[in-house]
Amino acid sequence: MGDLKLNHSVKNGAVSRLNPLDPEEFRRQGHMMIDFIADYYQNIEIYPVRSQVKPGYLRERLPESAPVNPEPLEIILKDVQNDIIPGITHWQSPNFFAYFPSSGSIAGFLGEMLSTGFNTVGFNWIGSPAATELESIVMDWLGKMLKLPSSFLFSGGGGGVIVVTCSNNFRFRSRTNSLVLMLHRRDYLSSSTAVDPLGPLCDVAKEYGIWVHVDAAYAGGACICPEFRHFLDGVEGANSFSFNAHKWFFTTLDCCCLWLKHPSALISALSTNPEILNNKATESKQVVDYKDWQMALSRRFRALKLWLVLRSYGVTGLGDFIRGHVKMAKHFESLLAADKRFEVVFPTNFAMVSFRVSPLAIPNNEDVNEFNRNLLESINASGSAYMVHAVVGGVYVIRLAVGATLTEYQHVTMAFKLVQDRANALLCTY
Amino acid sequence: MGDLKLNHSVKNGAVSRLNPLDPEEFRRQGHMMIDFIADYYQNIEIYPVRSQVKPGYLRERLPESAPVNPEPLEIILKDVQNDIIPGITHWQSPNFFAYFPSSGSIAGFLGEMLSTGFNTVGFNWIGSPAATELESIVMDWLGKMLKLPSSFLFSGGGGGVIVVTCSNNFRFRSRTNSLVLMLHRRDYLSSSTAVDPLGPLCDVAKEYGIWVHVDAAYAGGACICPEFRHFLDGVEGANSFSFNAHKWFFTTLDCCCLWLKHPSALISALSTNPEILNNKATESKQVVDYKDWQMALSRRFRALKLWLVLRSYGVTGLGDFIRGHVKMAKHFESLLAADKRFEVVFPTNFAMVSFRVSPLAIPNNEDVNEFNRNLLESINASGSAYMVHAVVGGVYVIRLAVGATLTEYQHVTMAFKLVQDRANALLCTY
Repeated sequence: MGDLKLNHSVKNGAVSRLNPLDPEEFRRQGHMMIDFIADYYQNIEIYPVRSQVKPGYLRERLPESAPVNPEPLEIILKDVQNDIIPGITHWQSPNFFAYFPSSGSIAGFLGEMLSTGFNTVGFNWIGSPAATELESIVMDWLGKMLKLPSSFLFSGGGGGVIVVTCSNNFRFRSRTNSLVLMLHRRDYLSSSTAVDPLGPLCDVAKEYGIWVHVDAAYAGGACICPEFRHFLDGVEGANSFSFNAHKWFFTTLDCCCLWLKHPSALISALSTNPEILNNKATESKQVVDYKDWQMALSRRFRALKLWLVLRSYGVTGLGDFIRGHVKMAKHFESLLAADKRFEVVFPTNFAMVSFRVSPLAIPNNEDVNEFNRNLLESINASGSAYMVHAVVGGVYVIRLAVGATLTEYQHVTMAFKLVQDRANALLCTY
Repeated sequence: MGDLKLNHSVKNGAVSRLNPLDPEEFRRQGHMMIDFIADYYQNIEIYPVRSQVKPGYLRERLPESAPVNPEPLEIILKDVQNDIIPGITHWQSPNFFAYFPSSGSIAGFLGEMLSTGFNTVGFNWIGSPAATELESIVMDWLGKMLKLPSSFLFSGGGGGVIVVTCSNNFRFRSRTNSLVLMLHRRDYLSSSTAVDPLGPLCDVAKEYGIWVHVDAAYAGGACICPEFRHFLDGVEGANSFSFNAHKWFFTTLDCCCLWLKHPSALISALSTNPEILNNKATESKQVVDYKDWQMALSRRFRALKLWLVLRSYGVTGLGDFIRGHVKMAKHFESLLAADKRFEVVFPTNFAMVSFRVSPLAIPNNEDVNEFNRNLLESINASGSAYMVHAVVGGVYVIRLAVGATLTEYQHVTMAFKLVQDRANALLCTY
């Protein structure tokens, strides 16, 4: 069998297996995978954005058990193409406008590769000093870009850490109950991208001694642009602040940036000290051991990808990418405004437009929410774009979130034409 | 400036920035990174295994703020080489014997690339059906390889999920308190690789209605080999079972495989239903929404790397890799046995040897633990190998954990010679 040649070499009649991390084989297969993914990006628009498969589709295609013998990458990649890709909802497609973006980038991808290549476990400083120190440094860099008060930076007695995702921050209760997270208004705020006025809220919380965590999961990164920074006014009264760089900051999943004024509160809640991890650097108290800033013990070297993103695009580049998406959202809004049958339901703060077919355009006896629900399903079933809905105050809205990295003006224009066509078709049925 | 050419193209006098996910630029930079990492593996033995930098080394080398303008990958990679690599503790080095292994592999790396390339957010089935379905399928495959009772598999009413890491499982308390994890003996058991007899423990727990979670973080994967499967005897009485495929199962960080007999207990504790995620597939109750099986809402497509590992190496290949490490550990044990000054402190169950210089070899007035502590520091300061210690029952032991993927017999032999040389040198000072 030809495939055996790839994983084995025959020497003196005996089959000798290659080391599974053999550098030359790594190089060969690595290049093959880069080309596969580059081709995927090149062709991404030919696939339906929202996967069209039926539940259980993959179990019908894959064997019931793992293979006994090794299989070559060439065969596996064919199966990725034929069996996996049909079941992918293409978050990297320029026609993906659903949920919040998962904005990949070349730099984020390369940083992830490097982190996976080193495959270090940075539970403490000595586990890989560079992993800890780079994380502290880039969190200070990013804190400065956001003009966070210096009390959130290491230099000001606070500090930052990269954790899995913002939603996690709400899920945990500390073991000591010394850390209480409040203002759990995220489900509502996130779906509409409304922003609370931080100053007055922090003032009230301070009066009652309540910990204020500001979760800017989606749009926190946009505040590196001076024109959006005002949304963070008052953050100096908060205890902690976070945003997901994997949403709209060109860093691949997962990368939640969390800053705290008093990291000691987190550390006293979460620290562990198994004997096996004791070491001189920790004893010296001169180092950060990030295991004490998170729930899990193990941690990946996530700072690398954020560092590569910041360096590869620079502060100006990142600001321009964000502004580009905001402008495209405004463009979509202007297209809606030119057709009186549509209405924008919430003000567009960032790059997300909430709209619907107006009750005025819908025949009297029809349920407005139901009509818009049918419209959205018709849009998504087309495969040409993917959007999702929200319901706020009983109003069903369709959300168009611009933020997929490959999206350009033409995609937004096409998305509007799709919405218009499908609305026309639905209105004709009455 | 030359570097501008890399990120910009000049057209009619105006600078037009490349899309940060431009497929051809992705291809160019991706190939560059593959070569960088392949070269790193090729040269990995020239670096001290445990980083020798001093706390704060990186802040002295990096700028205080993020760059304003984009920088080219060529420059960034030079900085990785000069500034980051000295601060890496090389977990992929064949001379890394510390903690537990973080066993990378080509297949694990490629799976991670593919998952990062798709960069999907698989909180629910529709977020990417392939991500959910492949995860359920590979967890069934792996459960069968481990001969878990069918009640842990989807086909038997249970099911598996990939979470971040086993240590997380102990950290959370569910919001509803419907899920209680017990048998928190991991810190002790892990450092010595001792294994509890599961049958009798489960019997006692059943009597009191206590949830039994079996955490086989390090060596669970070894139980795919028939000769190690007996360690899991009695698991049929447990409620859940997990191991970290990123430790000793050739899957890059992070990948904790968790099976449950009654996933409903987890789901009732952890499910969330924001309106924005409502969809027909979820309403049909025909699909798994893995967001309800974990604390965070977002999740990466981790099943891909496990699938690539299982297929690229097959059941036989994986068993052979594990057996190879176990044999190397036995080889180290036999080298120790030939020098009466050393003793093996705990029985070697898997590929981790716990040893020390015997009290009989140490001059009367010396503290045995202190001597071995000094010996370990001397070994690690050499940069030629990295091991850590454990203290069990007051006895300080040095641990040699074989499991780095690149490790071969010669590395274990050299590690023994290093231990011997350093012990000789220390004994000579008396």
